[in-house]
Amino acid sequence: MTEPTDIDNDIGVTSRRRFLRKGGALVGGAVIAGGLAGSEALGASESAHNLPPNVPEWMKTPGDLMGSQLYGTPSPFEKGVIKNIPKDLSQYLSASGRTPLQDLDGIITPNGLFYERHHAGVPTIDPAQHRLMLHGLVDKPLIFTMDDIRRFPTESRIHFLECSGNPGYKKPYGKTASDLVGLLSCAEWTGVSLKLVLQEAGLQQAAKWVVAEGADAAALTRSIPIEKCLEDAMLVYSQNGERLRPQQGYPLRLLLPGFEGNMNVKWLRRLRVAAEPAYSREETSKYTDLMPDGSAREFTFYMEAKSIITRPSGGQRLSAPGFHEISGIAWSGHGKIKRVDVSVDAGKSWQEAQLQEPVLTRALTRFRLPWQWDGRPAVIQSRATDETDYVQPTLAELLAVRGDNYFYHNNAIWPWRIAADGEVTNANA
Amino acid sequence: MTEPTDIDNDIGVTSRRRFLRKGGALVGGAVIAGGLAGSEALGASESAHNLPPNVPEWMKTPGDLMGSQLYGTPSPFEKGVIKNIPKDLSQYLSASGRTPLQDLDGIITPNGLFYERHHAGVPTIDPAQHRLMLHGLVDKPLIFTMDDIRRFPTESRIHFLECSGNPGYKKPYGKTASDLVGLLSCAEWTGVSLKLVLQEAGLQQAAKWVVAEGADAAALTRSIPIEKCLEDAMLVYSQNGERLRPQQGYPLRLLLPGFEGNMNVKWLRRLRVAAEPAYSREETSKYTDLMPDGSAREFTFYMEAKSIITRPSGGQRLSAPGFHEISGIAWSGHGKIKRVDVSVDAGKSWQEAQLQEPVLTRALTRFRLPWQWDGRPAVIQSRATDETDYVQPTLAELLAVRGDNYFYHNNAIWPWRIAADGEVTNANA
Repeated sequence: MTEPTDIDNDIGVTSRRRFLRKGGALVGGAVIAGGLAGSEALGASESAHNLPPNVPEWMKTPGDLMGSQLYGTPSPFEKGVIKNIPKDLSQYLSASGRTPLQDLDGIITPNGLFYERHHAGVPTIDPAQHRLMLHGLVDKPLIFTMDDIRRFPTESRIHFLECSGNPGYKKPYGKTASDLVGLLSCAEWTGVSLKLVLQEAGLQQAAKWVVAEGADAAALTRSIPIEKCLEDAMLVYSQNGERLRPQQGYPLRLLLPGFEGNMNVKWLRRLRVAAEPAYSREETSKYTDLMPDGSAREFTFYMEAKSIITRPSGGQRLSAPGFHEISGIAWSGHGKIKRVDVSVDAGKSWQEAQLQEPVLTRALTRFRLPWQWDGRPAVIQSRATDETDYVQPTLAELLAVRGDNYFYHNNAIWPWRIAADGEVTNANA
Repeated sequence: MTEPTDIDNDIGVTSRRRFLRKGGALVGGAVIAGGLAGSEALGASESAHNLPPNVPEWMKTPGDLMGSQLYGTPSPFEKGVIKNIPKDLSQYLSASGRTPLQDLDGIITPNGLFYERHHAGVPTIDPAQHRLMLHGLVDKPLIFTMDDIRRFPTESRIHFLECSGNPGYKKPYGKTASDLVGLLSCAEWTGVSLKLVLQEAGLQQAAKWVVAEGADAAALTRSIPIEKCLEDAMLVYSQNGERLRPQQGYPLRLLLPGFEGNMNVKWLRRLRVAAEPAYSREETSKYTDLMPDGSAREFTFYMEAKSIITRPSGGQRLSAPGFHEISGIAWSGHGKIKRVDVSVDAGKSWQEAQLQEPVLTRALTRFRLPWQWDGRPAVIQSRATDETDYVQPTLAELLAVRGDNYFYHNNAIWPWRIAADGEVTNANA
């Protein structure tokens, strides 16, 4: 049995106060000062020295009642963690909102901060009225209600989604990880295998493409090769457990793991099975890359392996020299991330980072490297390798191949500069 | 090259309307009627027959502008998917709000719907003022700011959390899966290994327990065996990427994977390392189980293997005989789920369900079984087995061991009754 101490009386405010005064004497301004396991010491926290372990105001009165939020929201102290939209747009109808990657941990993007990109605003769709039409080179054209779609066997998988213009510049002036590659998020998706739905209609011999159309005012249309439709494509209605958010295609979207975001058609209303692609606006005048010889790369589909350090990253500041973990995310449209290397000396040498398990195919992978910052200026960067052994290129390597005209599909390594005062900035800006 | 069709002109409303009239003729009321791969036919959807594939209203005008929600919320058509709180409570200060499990897919619970249970309301804590004090049987008592905590190396892991009183009745009258076991959620957590923080302070030889205290007005206090603290315990500040929600302990909580929810102390302000447990209110008069011989099981810690079918489940209705997927969740505090069996004949026979990969330790696991409902009354239920080969018991088996007095730690199999009209109800109610 334990000796009685006043902590046992955990609801007696008086006794707790006495204990805490005693505790204050015991602790006496002692703060982080020891050695961090296997590493050097964390710096002492200056602010903590002067703060006694008083009972804070929020322990002295009861908090908010149960049910004050039947659908929860973040703490008011996190009100700055929101989607990042450009301040200088001439219009907000065809625009994008970026995930604040530098404020997030792990690999799951919360639904409220999932990136969005739309071409004619976000429609408000009544799921009871929504229909999906499947026609073209099929034996049996079909129309599905949402209830019909929900009747199919389900699958759940964690995958990233990324806009192909992320970043859409050769030399982005963005300050933060979100400015640079915030058109990137990752969620657990639930829906039905597209293969199963196509089999329900019966694919004809000549079927080579599926042309998908969204129910927004842009009727956004993309052509998907039949191989992808029969591999791992899904019709999804849920994202991180709950139904899709309107910005992500409520009530139904196409999910093409690893393919550029634009092809994952939202508010999906129509699938036309065809022998040829549609050559729609979004796969000809847009989402193609103009090469040095004047030809255009089209139907590039897969997002190549990529990574970025999110902590420390642009807009943040290292508080003091000493231990800092370098953490970031890596991903590849071609499968699993095999390794991530990190350089803290402007690319002269590289160290292999630790990957957080489970490493999932076509999903974000969190990487980490312990780092002892000596307080001198430094340039840090990460380089991803995927399971096909493709290695994320430098910007110079990418420009040498693609030339000056391209806009989409920039998967270059992105370095951060750390100044002597700890300020982190975009080293390419 | 494709032959030009009017779908190419994907922003021409006139041409799209023409195409869709043509499409309507092609489709002509044909709806789901074929054979579902490897199974029998889905029932035809009556409502879809009468709906031509018209251009819906929401395609005729642009949608909401970018930035109309910088922190997104669900569709207005999902406004009924909220936390489930009892309507008949005499007070809402010490109460609980349940996750609407029957409305969710996959294994991740979105933060807005994560279950909550608190004893003196939800405090609003300024993270800049919050402190964690670590003292007792350590070489160096320490006080940490949130910035200090964030300096430690990080980990991210997906784990469930479950209240030990879930359900807190031998024969619950709950109608839905949420009523029965909705004090259960699962998220990706990020924080620091508690082992690392304890090592920073230096554990003394006599250290056997860590007494954790929350910064709410209840100063909720629980004693954690040192073995768990050195195994996989974490101090977490992020949940599904973003910072913890206030209801889940913002800015810092203890996470003890697999241990009963109450021990995962929220708003964590103090860790006292001790030779003995505190025998606090929450581990003596509450959260213990009175056995038939008058003794009380205390310090039971681990939540045993458990599962429930969430679809179809109480409050839902099967629309018609034919194919229905049975889907649910399984979990165990002792590790990974090894298998789930499902019975559709009131327990007379069982079939092994498919488990959705990846199966993670101490996380929810989604299971599924294809089922052909013949339209006759049925009783369906699931039974989980974890990697220790422990098998989820029936309610009768549990009562035989525990007697009539116990309240917490009910992990019995829960059957649903399906009536001839498709209505699903609690078969134990």
